[in-house]
Amino acid sequence: MHAYRSHTCADLSLENKGDNVRLSGWVHRVRDHGGVLFLDLRDHYGITQVICDPDSPAFAEMEKVRAEWCVRIDGTVKARDESLVNPKLPTGAIEVYAREIEVLGSAAELPLQVFGDQEYPEETRLRYRYLDLRREKMQKNMTLRSDVVTSIRKRMWDQNFREFQTPIITASSPEGARDFLVPSRLHPGKFYALPQAPQQFKQLLMVSGFDKYFQIAPCFRDEDPRADRSPTDFYQLDMEMSFVTQQDVFDTIQPVIAGIFEEFGGGKKVDETWEQISYKDAALWYGSDKPDLRNPIKMQVVSEHFRDSGFAIFAKLLEQDGTEIRAIPAPTGGSRKFCDRMNAFAQKEGLPGMGYIFWRDQGNGMEAAGPLAKNIGPERTEAIRQQLGLNVGDAAFFLGGKPKSFEAVAGRARNVIGEELNLTDKNRFAFAWIVDFPIYEKDEETGKIDFEHNPFSMPQGGMDALLDDPLKVLGYQYDLACNGYELVSGAIRNHKPEIMFKAFEIAGYGEDEVRKRFGGMVNAFQYGAPPHGGCAAGIDRIVMLLAEEANIREVILFPMNQRAEDLMMNAPSEPTSDQLMELGLRVIPQE
Amino acid sequence: MHAYRSHTCADLSLENKGDNVRLSGWVHRVRDHGGVLFLDLRDHYGITQVICDPDSPAFAEMEKVRAEWCVRIDGTVKARDESLVNPKLPTGAIEVYAREIEVLGSAAELPLQVFGDQEYPEETRLRYRYLDLRREKMQKNMTLRSDVVTSIRKRMWDQNFREFQTPIITASSPEGARDFLVPSRLHPGKFYALPQAPQQFKQLLMVSGFDKYFQIAPCFRDEDPRADRSPTDFYQLDMEMSFVTQQDVFDTIQPVIAGIFEEFGGGKKVDETWEQISYKDAALWYGSDKPDLRNPIKMQVVSEHFRDSGFAIFAKLLEQDGTEIRAIPAPTGGSRKFCDRMNAFAQKEGLPGMGYIFWRDQGNGMEAAGPLAKNIGPERTEAIRQQLGLNVGDAAFFLGGKPKSFEAVAGRARNVIGEELNLTDKNRFAFAWIVDFPIYEKDEETGKIDFEHNPFSMPQGGMDALLDDPLKVLGYQYDLACNGYELVSGAIRNHKPEIMFKAFEIAGYGEDEVRKRFGGMVNAFQYGAPPHGGCAAGIDRIVMLLAEEANIREVILFPMNQRAEDLMMNAPSEPTSDQLMELGLRVIPQE
Repeated sequence: MHAYRSHTCADLSLENKGDNVRLSGWVHRVRDHGGVLFLDLRDHYGITQVICDPDSPAFAEMEKVRAEWCVRIDGTVKARDESLVNPKLPTGAIEVYAREIEVLGSAAELPLQVFGDQEYPEETRLRYRYLDLRREKMQKNMTLRSDVVTSIRKRMWDQNFREFQTPIITASSPEGARDFLVPSRLHPGKFYALPQAPQQFKQLLMVSGFDKYFQIAPCFRDEDPRADRSPTDFYQLDMEMSFVTQQDVFDTIQPVIAGIFEEFGGGKKVDETWEQISYKDAALWYGSDKPDLRNPIKMQVVSEHFRDSGFAIFAKLLEQDGTEIRAIPAPTGGSRKFCDRMNAFAQKEGLPGMGYIFWRDQGNGMEAAGPLAKNIGPERTEAIRQQLGLNVGDAAFFLGGKPKSFEAVAGRARNVIGEELNLTDKNRFAFAWIVDFPIYEKDEETGKIDFEHNPFSMPQGGMDALLDDPLKVLGYQYDLACNGYELVSGAIRNHKPEIMFKAFEIAGYGEDEVRKRFGGMVNAFQYGAPPHGGCAAGIDRIVMLLAEEANIREVILFPMNQRAEDLMMNAPSEPTSDQLMELGLRVIPQE
Repeated sequence: MHAYRSHTCADLSLENKGDNVRLSGWVHRVRDHGGVLFLDLRDHYGITQVICDPDSPAFAEMEKVRAEWCVRIDGTVKARDESLVNPKLPTGAIEVYAREIEVLGSAAELPLQVFGDQEYPEETRLRYRYLDLRREKMQKNMTLRSDVVTSIRKRMWDQNFREFQTPIITASSPEGARDFLVPSRLHPGKFYALPQAPQQFKQLLMVSGFDKYFQIAPCFRDEDPRADRSPTDFYQLDMEMSFVTQQDVFDTIQPVIAGIFEEFGGGKKVDETWEQISYKDAALWYGSDKPDLRNPIKMQVVSEHFRDSGFAIFAKLLEQDGTEIRAIPAPTGGSRKFCDRMNAFAQKEGLPGMGYIFWRDQGNGMEAAGPLAKNIGPERTEAIRQQLGLNVGDAAFFLGGKPKSFEAVAGRARNVIGEELNLTDKNRFAFAWIVDFPIYEKDEETGKIDFEHNPFSMPQGGMDALLDDPLKVLGYQYDLACNGYELVSGAIRNHKPEIMFKAFEIAGYGEDEVRKRFGGMVNAFQYGAPPHGGCAAGIDRIVMLLAEEANIREVILFPMNQRAEDLMMNAPSEPTSDQLMELGLRVIPQE
């Protein structure tokens, strides 16, 4: 017989009745029922009930073991009493009568219980992560993560992509966040950087002729920690293709992502067709470039109904250039109580408030209630109702001004309204491509024009477009929104050096600066660069959505805490003076 | 039709005759044959011949394109003239008559030709790696590497292993080489380290109950560059299992490695059974713990034949403790010329020389030639011949002293003899497990006892063994040798804190020191650690063997040069003073 086990703790059933077996695992729980010991033995695969009574030679030893000891048990498989069968457990029909037990690893007093639902502070969980990870939920989350990554790989291979590993110790990458630096010992005073993403390398691979690339790529950004962001490393499905249009990238990645959500989404509905929504429309309709489309609410421009109306605030606002009034329809939200609550929400978000109208049944017909309706009169009110397609029992909220000043709050209000009115379909993964991002934005204060997003996207219309008003230039750049999150981001790249230099020039970067910052890529583009594009999908984010977790640390094996520390491994820590000497560095004393 | 291509450059055959097609790729070669242009268009998949004559509207444009320009071509598929069919090319039966050409990316003058076999200095190749990678050999090597990694993953999954990602920004790991450090911005003056291997994490995963782990893991060691070593990051197939013996690890990994060599080894014979050779026997028989077993030569101890013999040097040597005389049999090496050459080899390697005997046919029987034979006389000479199983035309070389002093040279001499006499079977991948490594070694000068290898291996015999002579303690520790390389290294781990502390104590490390250096793991072992073990296989090394490359940079996409620099991306580079400030560091001026 094998030194440690003949079966796993999930293997045994009535078919094994009478077999002599050997199991190894952890003591999940041990109970003493009137002199008979019941021990739940757990391994990665399942739980098997072990019993032992004073007739067994193992009894004395068995009495000593405690929760989370690692043990080997030899025994005989028996059928459980009919009344004790546990149909929820794969091994629930049997138990193992122990004849021998060996302690493989005993356990000190536990700082954290594995069995049961007790909650512990995150610091405790991270310090004793190896115990925390034994808990059922964590085993499930990590298994899910591994299976998701495996499935992504298979789906990419099926589409004839090859995975390539790009360097991890390299030069600064142009993603715009802060780099982690790595001091060079052989070149004291010089530093490598960890890649924020393999952006330049994947583009170089296209220039190298590899045609289709993907990588489950570790990415590194030295950012301040957040619940949904790892403070150090995170993983992307990074991919790139040559000789493609934007639609080709969509057609490639949609089946991968949809397939993953169908496979691991627990039966939730996965959208079959993914709408393409322009960045501009997304801002108008949803107040966000990562809208939650499980929520059916779509905002509309209703400026005309307020122009020169009796509602002076809006009428006055509309006299200024670039202002708009937008409505958030709220089907079934037609009560003063709800409307007041949403008004208060807007105030809490820093706006003066949200005007509203709600429609109620007054016995002899519909009545539009709320101060706004009174101010603009029944005709305009009715026109608004008809435009928004609302009815008795519904409400609408109104925000005005320059869209940039209220769009984000409108978007959040839409989320809250959808949630509170149960309009948001929680049983769905709702996807849409957000397209046509502007290449540039203007800083309102300085008037300076800068890149809105990634400077490496091809402008729609190419060089010609750049010769016109830069703020009108759209890029072949896209995000995938899912349930209010940005899941994927990508672009068709600007592969023509002359268009790239022009694009940077508009944002105020001279050719020298561009060559200095992105020399590797820009040089390469001089030697026959193919048109190419791709995208990157956040692995941690995908797993969070599938595991229904709000905290990224629930889907990472050994995450840092919120101060970017690993208390279990003691990182970061003081270097030795020899190490510093070798690197030619000195630590500046902190005050 | 698609914007860039209806087919790849490997797709078209006579079946497409008459089709209007669109291809995109690089101009591999362009020739002008009496006013008719022949252009080989290349993409990742293959090459298609394009022709164009002055009747084509594309002719003028076509005359302008040069090698490595990226172009799109529209045209009509035609059958080649019988005499021009190229059976070596999948598309060799057709050509495409071009009607339209679009330059997608032109190329400046090339620093490196893609077509042809011209050699370039490595610095040029690395600086223009995107051109170098377009060359057929590099496309093949990188594709091979990707396919090998894919196949490894599939084979591990098939054995119910899951892949888990362990942290990359973490604490110092106990592999014994130099760490790359990463300064922490949030904790100025403190540093993270990049893992030399996920050793501690994979062991923690076992303590966490995950049972079977693998990872294609990036590893980081700040070592001085060598031809067969990347100066920064390299990849391992890292794996670990719980509740296993050494044999279980062998049974798991052998089919994976053998499968890879069968799949990608180009038909070379892959050993079916892998011998297990003790470290001690490997040293004796092959003078190496990574023997090349394609070479059938096995050394033997022949001390008895020289004790008190007429060969005074050896006879005297043998009077000292711990000395031995060993023979390297050299079948078919029986000529004075060869023997003298090998003697000179040993002298070049720093030994006084290698005595030899060779056997030749003297008409009326066999004669043993060489000074040694004369000194020890015919009886001893014949006894040696019989022990070594040699015959007319063969030779034997002799080395004496303390084995440590000549073993390595003997091993190298064995390699040279095998090569020169064509005894080494180049058409084979020869595998053997080297087992029973000693846990400790004694420093000859200081007399201090230290770990011979990895301090985390379980001693054979457990605690009891440690209470005896430490130099006799063997570990459950193993390497896999293949064709003279160490391909895999692993161990059954020491998972019992008390045995671990004892093991460290013998090597002079107190409990405090162990807790300080390996706290994460040692703490974890207090909470019910399972017996576990595993191994790591070098991906780069495997691909080098399969690609028959001697330089690791030939199987890495974007490697550093031998000074650990990336000239293409400009790494490492000077940090900005803001970056240093944020990290609380100052660079010490170099003299």
